[in-house]
Amino acid sequence: MYRRNHFAYQYVSKKAFALPVVGEVHQPAVFQYHDLLSLPAKTLQVVLECAGNKRSYFEPKVFGEQWKEGAISEGVWQGVPLRSLLAFTGVKKTAVEVVFDGYDFGTRTNMKGHFLYARSLPLEKALHPDTIIAYAYNGKPIPYKHGYPLRLIVPQWYAMASVKWLQKITVIDHTFQGPFQTVDYVYYPDEESDSGTPVTHMRVNSIIQYPLDWGRVNTGVHRIHGLAWSGIGAVTAAEISVNGGHSWHTASLQSTPEHPYGWSVWSYAWHATQTGVYKIMSRALDSAGNAQPLEAHWNTKGYGYNAVATVNVKVQ
Amino acid sequence: MYRRNHFAYQYVSKKAFALPVVGEVHQPAVFQYHDLLSLPAKTLQVVLECAGNKRSYFEPKVFGEQWKEGAISEGVWQGVPLRSLLAFTGVKKTAVEVVFDGYDFGTRTNMKGHFLYARSLPLEKALHPDTIIAYAYNGKPIPYKHGYPLRLIVPQWYAMASVKWLQKITVIDHTFQGPFQTVDYVYYPDEESDSGTPVTHMRVNSIIQYPLDWGRVNTGVHRIHGLAWSGIGAVTAAEISVNGGHSWHTASLQSTPEHPYGWSVWSYAWHATQTGVYKIMSRALDSAGNAQPLEAHWNTKGYGYNAVATVNVKVQ
Repeated sequence: MYRRNHFAYQYVSKKAFALPVVGEVHQPAVFQYHDLLSLPAKTLQVVLECAGNKRSYFEPKVFGEQWKEGAISEGVWQGVPLRSLLAFTGVKKTAVEVVFDGYDFGTRTNMKGHFLYARSLPLEKALHPDTIIAYAYNGKPIPYKHGYPLRLIVPQWYAMASVKWLQKITVIDHTFQGPFQTVDYVYYPDEESDSGTPVTHMRVNSIIQYPLDWGRVNTGVHRIHGLAWSGIGAVTAAEISVNGGHSWHTASLQSTPEHPYGWSVWSYAWHATQTGVYKIMSRALDSAGNAQPLEAHWNTKGYGYNAVATVNVKVQ
Repeated sequence: MYRRNHFAYQYVSKKAFALPVVGEVHQPAVFQYHDLLSLPAKTLQVVLECAGNKRSYFEPKVFGEQWKEGAISEGVWQGVPLRSLLAFTGVKKTAVEVVFDGYDFGTRTNMKGHFLYARSLPLEKALHPDTIIAYAYNGKPIPYKHGYPLRLIVPQWYAMASVKWLQKITVIDHTFQGPFQTVDYVYYPDEESDSGTPVTHMRVNSIIQYPLDWGRVNTGVHRIHGLAWSGIGAVTAAEISVNGGHSWHTASLQSTPEHPYGWSVWSYAWHATQTGVYKIMSRALDSAGNAQPLEAHWNTKGYGYNAVATVNVKVQ
């Protein structure tokens, strides 16, 4: 699983571990780790993708971690729906958002002071039955680098929302103004803008896993294959071009409706009869009517890159 | 340690393992694994660098593994000088080169048949006292992915010469024509050329480890640091530019004459007082009079990239 954090990994012991749920609730509560294990659990196969995944492909270049396709992982998370905890505490009519504090903290460039990693969700997403307080990953306790003992898992959103080393949950009556929500994880259209659109859902996207970019292959039949995913609806099609986007073919897609938050595997049999250099592209489409664009939506912090995937291949 | 192979990893048992030394020798011999352990050993700290390291930086782009700076490692290899084995067998006057067969084999694009991974050395390099048949890496048996039980180690040459899973040594009276020597690992100046210069010594080179490319830092003093190495002579200086090559400063260099085949650590205190975007460069020089060029030596297979290292940094 890929790793990306703003601050140092935190070692949090599950002994003495307790999760307070406070704020605009009727009955504040503190849930012990073992209380959570005993509540009805939900198990979900989820794609987590860093909002900066593929950042290195933006042109003009943007500053930040130069991810290629590696900042994405799929795995099975098990935990308690947040709504079960909020059903216990009750939520006041004044509630607007729910804030999640991680244990991780530190300094930031260009801002004074120390900051906790903290993010909020709008009440509706917080109450979604698949927004869970996870305590297991792939059938085992969450590895400490990935948020042990508790991690919020927010399917369909970029993974900055899935707060690791969860420390505290606070229901608030206003919109949260923490810097990981108002400074980072905002789509700023240009360097002059100090406001933009918040980063939320994963955009429809795909990668080509074979062939490799700038790889060489023999003439013959090659199974071009890769992955496709979307944070809004299901992937409905993957299309492949072997001529730089002049024409497109429908790939075969292994749909997995039982795992609506997972990725889909696609493949396409390419008859590479002529030697030469080829530009292969993949484009995913989703049930909400979105398709990967030919040009990325450039933004100053380099989030949400989802232009069609491209690899260059030499057939020899 | 980085990994790069042409074929699948080989599992070779040390039980029943024996290394034949044959060809233009007076007394062919087969050395048992435990014979080798009992001979006088040499321990060397060696940089191994893939000839394709930094390939992704070539412009125009070249086909092949798109390495950035990661295809290089330093570690301690222990083994028997090849010359000790050749002293035992004797070498005929007709000897020209020594061929090293690995156990790894497979098919190649654009050529029919199966091939062993095999490379040769000129007799002079084969007889160099620091060309060793290694059986240990960092004090332990060589990991199987890195050539267990025996790997040839050729300091100062790009690592294609350091044949893994060593199977057989043959002294020959001509120049070896295997494809990993005559097709691959040749500097071809352009697509039309079918001859070029063989890839041998590592070119003088450096990397910047901090700051990261396209990273953001605060104003203040930053210790720019990195590594420098050369396959011909010792690194004598590292020079740093913080203005895209307009002016250069001498970095402080930790020289390690006790490890002539290791890399050198350099650092430079950068007073970043003004916000803005900076192009930081490093340039290594060696005792043979080589310096990293501003432009890479482009070649069709993308070997030996050693242009000055560059990172772009935003001070904010």
